[in-house]
Amino acid sequence: MSEESAPEAGEAAAVSDRAARERLLYLRSSIDNLDAALVHLLAERFKCTQQVGELKARHSLPPADPAREAAQIERLRTLAADARLDPAFAEKFLNFIISEVVRHHRAIAEGTHEAPGTPTDG
Amino acid sequence: MSEESAPEAGEAAAVSDRAARERLLYLRSSIDNLDAALVHLLAERFKCTQQVGELKARHSLPPADPAREAAQIERLRTLAADARLDPAFAEKFLNFIISEVVRHHRAIAEGTHEAPGTPTDG
Repeated sequence: MSEESAPEAGEAAAVSDRAARERLLYLRSSIDNLDAALVHLLAERFKCTQQVGELKARHSLPPADPAREAAQIERLRTLAADARLDPAFAEKFLNFIISEVVRHHRAIAEGTHEAPGTPTDG
Repeated sequence: MSEESAPEAGEAAAVSDRAARERLLYLRSSIDNLDAALVHLLAERFKCTQQVGELKARHSLPPADPAREAAQIERLRTLAADARLDPAFAEKFLNFIISEVVRHHRAIAEGTHEAPGTPTDG
């Protein structure tokens, strides 16, 4: 194995053209930076929704809120289109996050919540 | 309908306690800000992976790269734990994004890709 076949490089090591290999590693380092930013923003978002969940539990509000979710989806679709991101993907992404949040809210309401960001089923 | 029952407010309008209602709206405005940031980072991430896809297609590399993906998952789990985000959720999130990216890469390799961020099947 060459020094370039570390797991981080993945198949970049298999690109025979040096310029292309360097370009691939360059792009992947940007992707890694963006992923770190995404994870930290998600952590912050769950801190907010954790507080919303506790507030909802205290005021006996249901974990899901269809009117709010519809407004969020519409807004994110518009933002996505402006950013040249597929609006359908933005909607799928928000639904993915919301389903996790609703699961957290249910756990809080049922008093089974362990810690912020720790879903009960894994 | 009161002026506070706009769709954006969702069930916030149903919270009878004024302080709690204001707190809920405050938290939701933070969530909306974070979502806008997330969408823009995702748009930037897909710009990078679009270029990776084109590079892979030119060099006949497969759309998926298991070694790279395993390294990314391990790294994100560690970052998530540091940020107090459930590592299992971070992994699910990355898999969600990667499956979209691989779909884009397949479309590029097959020459059916329409535009950055526009998956072929919606």
